[in-house]
Amino acid sequence: MRISARLFAVQRHTRQVRPAMAPLHRQISGTSGTLKPAAAAQSSVEQRFQPLPFFSRDAPPSSELSRGSNVTALLKRTRPLELPHVASNTRKVSVGWSNGVTSHFHHIWLRDHCRCADCLHPVTKQRLVNTFEIPPDVQPVRAESRPTGLEVTWSESPRHTSTFPWEWLSRSSYDPPIKYSPTFNSSRKTLWDSSIQQSPPIVSYEEVMKNDTGVYKWLQKIDEFGFCFISGVPPNPQDTETLTRRIAFIRDTKYGGFWDFTSDLEHGDTAYTNLALGAHTDTTYLSDPCGLQLFHLLSHEGTGGKTLLVDGFYAAAKLREKYPSHYELLTEVKISAHAAGDADSLYIPDEPFSILRKDLKGELMRVRYNNDDRSVLKFIDPVLVDDWYDALRSWNQCLTSPDAELWVQLTAGTAVVVDNHRVLHGRSAFTGKRRMCGAYVGADEWKSRLRVLSQAIDRQAWNSEF
Amino acid sequence: MRISARLFAVQRHTRQVRPAMAPLHRQISGTSGTLKPAAAAQSSVEQRFQPLPFFSRDAPPSSELSRGSNVTALLKRTRPLELPHVASNTRKVSVGWSNGVTSHFHHIWLRDHCRCADCLHPVTKQRLVNTFEIPPDVQPVRAESRPTGLEVTWSESPRHTSTFPWEWLSRSSYDPPIKYSPTFNSSRKTLWDSSIQQSPPIVSYEEVMKNDTGVYKWLQKIDEFGFCFISGVPPNPQDTETLTRRIAFIRDTKYGGFWDFTSDLEHGDTAYTNLALGAHTDTTYLSDPCGLQLFHLLSHEGTGGKTLLVDGFYAAAKLREKYPSHYELLTEVKISAHAAGDADSLYIPDEPFSILRKDLKGELMRVRYNNDDRSVLKFIDPVLVDDWYDALRSWNQCLTSPDAELWVQLTAGTAVVVDNHRVLHGRSAFTGKRRMCGAYVGADEWKSRLRVLSQAIDRQAWNSEF
Repeated sequence: MRISARLFAVQRHTRQVRPAMAPLHRQISGTSGTLKPAAAAQSSVEQRFQPLPFFSRDAPPSSELSRGSNVTALLKRTRPLELPHVASNTRKVSVGWSNGVTSHFHHIWLRDHCRCADCLHPVTKQRLVNTFEIPPDVQPVRAESRPTGLEVTWSESPRHTSTFPWEWLSRSSYDPPIKYSPTFNSSRKTLWDSSIQQSPPIVSYEEVMKNDTGVYKWLQKIDEFGFCFISGVPPNPQDTETLTRRIAFIRDTKYGGFWDFTSDLEHGDTAYTNLALGAHTDTTYLSDPCGLQLFHLLSHEGTGGKTLLVDGFYAAAKLREKYPSHYELLTEVKISAHAAGDADSLYIPDEPFSILRKDLKGELMRVRYNNDDRSVLKFIDPVLVDDWYDALRSWNQCLTSPDAELWVQLTAGTAVVVDNHRVLHGRSAFTGKRRMCGAYVGADEWKSRLRVLSQAIDRQAWNSEF
Repeated sequence: MRISARLFAVQRHTRQVRPAMAPLHRQISGTSGTLKPAAAAQSSVEQRFQPLPFFSRDAPPSSELSRGSNVTALLKRTRPLELPHVASNTRKVSVGWSNGVTSHFHHIWLRDHCRCADCLHPVTKQRLVNTFEIPPDVQPVRAESRPTGLEVTWSESPRHTSTFPWEWLSRSSYDPPIKYSPTFNSSRKTLWDSSIQQSPPIVSYEEVMKNDTGVYKWLQKIDEFGFCFISGVPPNPQDTETLTRRIAFIRDTKYGGFWDFTSDLEHGDTAYTNLALGAHTDTTYLSDPCGLQLFHLLSHEGTGGKTLLVDGFYAAAKLREKYPSHYELLTEVKISAHAAGDADSLYIPDEPFSILRKDLKGELMRVRYNNDDRSVLKFIDPVLVDDWYDALRSWNQCLTSPDAELWVQLTAGTAVVVDNHRVLHGRSAFTGKRRMCGAYVGADEWKSRLRVLSQAIDRQAWNSEF
C-alpha cells in the first residue's frame, strides 16, 4: 500500500457492482485544497518553455518574476492578443494557435484530462475522474475559446464543464506533438572539456547550509555541468553527511549509506588499495544506477591520488562528430553488467542497456559505462560485433583524450558531487594513507529536489506535466 | 568512487602515455583468489537451463546435487559424449554442437571474453583484460576442442591461451543467439486467479527466521506467484522490520524507511483514511518503482478493510488472449506518472514507460499501473488515441474481473509480501482504526538475494552471465 495521498480508485467493495449512474468524478474526502493559480498565468512568463507563441510579445522577461514583480500585473500584460480559434467535429476539438499551428484533441482525451477540482485533485494532482466511466463516444455540447482557456461543456447529466488553460493545452499538444517538454532531459547542459579547470563550478558550504537558495544554486550547477565542488566543508564525516542531506536522503546500496573508509590495504577490495581507477560511472549493474555521488577526501598522508572527471556528454558529442555510426551503435546495442564479487550479493540489472541512452526524442539522456563490469556481450546482431568493438574503441579514445580530462587534486575541505548519469570519474594511483567519505543520492531524489526549488524560487510551473 | 572491488582500469597517471608493449591483461594486486570449479562442471546438471544438448543424457537430475552428491563424480558422469567440432577462419571460430547447431564467435569477442584468471578476476568476475589493447584483427594461432572447453591460443607474445568452458560458451552464443538466458525475467511464473484463495503461497515466520533455506523458500514463492503470506509474525513493528531485513536492506523513499501508521484521519492523506483503494502498483512515478512491498496489519478495531491482490501477469495474459491488439498497444505506448502532492518533493520518472513492459525477447517483464498517478498522455501517435483508451478499458476489465481478484482479510500475525512489478494491490473501505506497518525492498536487492541463495542452496551457477 502506498503511504502518501492515495485517492480511492473505485468506490466498490468485494465484487460489488458499480452504480450505472455514478458521476464521472469520484468523491473526495479527507482532503481539501484550493486550486493554484492557473498554469497560464504562472507559465506564460517562462520564455524558455513557451512552445507556441500566442501570448503578447511584450511579455516581460522571466527575470522580472524572479525580481519579485506582481503576478496579477503580469497576468494582465501577458493576456493573449487574440484568443486561439476553436472548432470541433464528432471526434476532436481543434485549437488554432496564433502561430498558425493547429492542435487536435480527442474528446475522450479531453474528458480524461479535465482540470477541474472534481476531476484532478488540486493538491495531489492525481486523477479523480473515473476514466472507465467515460463513454468511449463522449461528446461535448459546446467547445469555446475563453481568455482562461478552452472551455468544453459535456453532455453528461448534470452538465460538466472543463476548462483547459491555454498554456497547459499547448504544452500537452500531441497532434502535432510539441517540440519541447520540460519533463524529461530538459536541463540546459553546458558540455565541458579540460579547460573547465580554469573556472570549475563551485559553491561554498556556507551558502548551501544557509538557505534553500544556496541548495538551488548548487543543484543548478550539477544539472548544468554534471558536477560541482563545495568549498569550505568541515573535514569530518558528520558535516559531510549533513551537507549531503541538504539535497535529499542518502541512497542505500550494498556498500551501506554514508561511507567513511581508508586505504589501509587490509581489505581485499581495490577501493581500499592505492590503485589507479580509469574513468567510469558507478553501479552500472543496478537497474537504476545511483544518481549523484558526493565524496570528500578527509586526509591523505602521501602523494598522488588525483581525481579524474570526464564529461560523458562531451565525449559522446565528440564521438558523434568524429564517428557518427559508432555513436549510433553505442546507443543501440544492449549490454549488461554485474556485481558478483561479494558472497552476499549478486547484482544483474533488470534488463540490458546501452552505454549511451537516448530519450524518446532521440537525444542523449544517460551515459552508463564501466568496461570492467561489463557482462558477456550476447544481445547483439552478429553482423555488428566487429563494428561494436570499433565503436567501443572510438568511445574509449574520446573518453581518454587529454582534452576531455579534468584532473584535480582534492584536499580536505573541498567536497565534490558528480552526476553519475553523465560524468565519469576515476583517480590516479597514490602512495600513503587516504581517508575518504561520501554517499550516493538517487537520481529521482535530486531531480525532485531541484524541481521543488525551481518552483519555489524561480516560480517554474510543472503543472503542464499533470 | 565505487566502494567495492574496483580493479584499476588503466595503469596510467595524468596524461601518461601507455607503454606500447603492455601486456593485454592488467596487473592484479591487493586481491587474490582461486578459480571456482569450471562452469561446465557446475552447470551441466541444471537441466532447466541447458540450452544445447551436447552432454550425456544419463546426467543425474538436478536434485542429486542438492542432496549433496560429489561434484567430481558428477563431472565424470556428465562428460560430453562427443566433443563439439571446432573450426576457424580469419574472423571467427565456429563450434558445432552435438545437436547440429553451429555457433560462431568473433576472434575479438573471444579475446575480450577470455576466462583465465589474468583476464577475468576469479573472485570479482570483473574484466581484467584491457579491451582497448586487443588488436582489432586479433588472430588465434590455434583453436581446439578439449574436454574442458574451447581452447584458443593467441598470437601475442608471450603466448596466451584461453579456455572457454562448453557450458559457458553455449550459453553465451550470439550467432545464433541462444533461446534462453537465465539472467533476465527467467523465473518460472505461475499465473493465478481468484481460485488461489484455496491454497495461497505461505511460509512461516519461524522458518524464515531460522535459516537461509527458509528465506530461499520464501523468495522462491514470491518469484513464482508474485506474493507470499508469512504466518506467525509477532504483531509488532520491531519483529516485522526484522522479518523484512531477512530479505535485504529497506528501500528508503519519500515516505521514509520502515512505516508504522494508523488510519486516524488526522492527516490530509488517504492512506490515513478509510477509503477504498483500487488495484494498482506503487511508486509508478519513480524511475525504478519499488520492488517488494511488505505490509502487516497490526490491529484493526472496526469492520471492512479487506486486502485485494491481482496477478498483473494473469490479467495481462487474459488481455492478450481476448484483445491481442490492446495488449500490444499497452506494451508500446509510453505514458508517464507523477507524485506532486507533497510540498517537499515532485517526482517524475526519468522517461516515459509502458504499462506493460516487454523484455528484449518480447515477453512481459513488468506491470506498472496506477491510473490515478498517470500524467498527461502526450507521447502517443494521434491515430492511436481512441485505440489506446479502448485498450485501457479492456485492461481495466481484465484487472477488475471477479475471477482475477484475490480478497483476503488480513489479521495481526500474518504479513504479506507483494512483488510490485507484477502483482497489483488494493483494499476495500473500512470503519474504525487500523494500524499498519511495512516497508519497501528494492527489486535489485531481493533478486540479488534470491540469486545468492539459489547459488548456495541449489548450486545454481550464474557464471554464464559474466
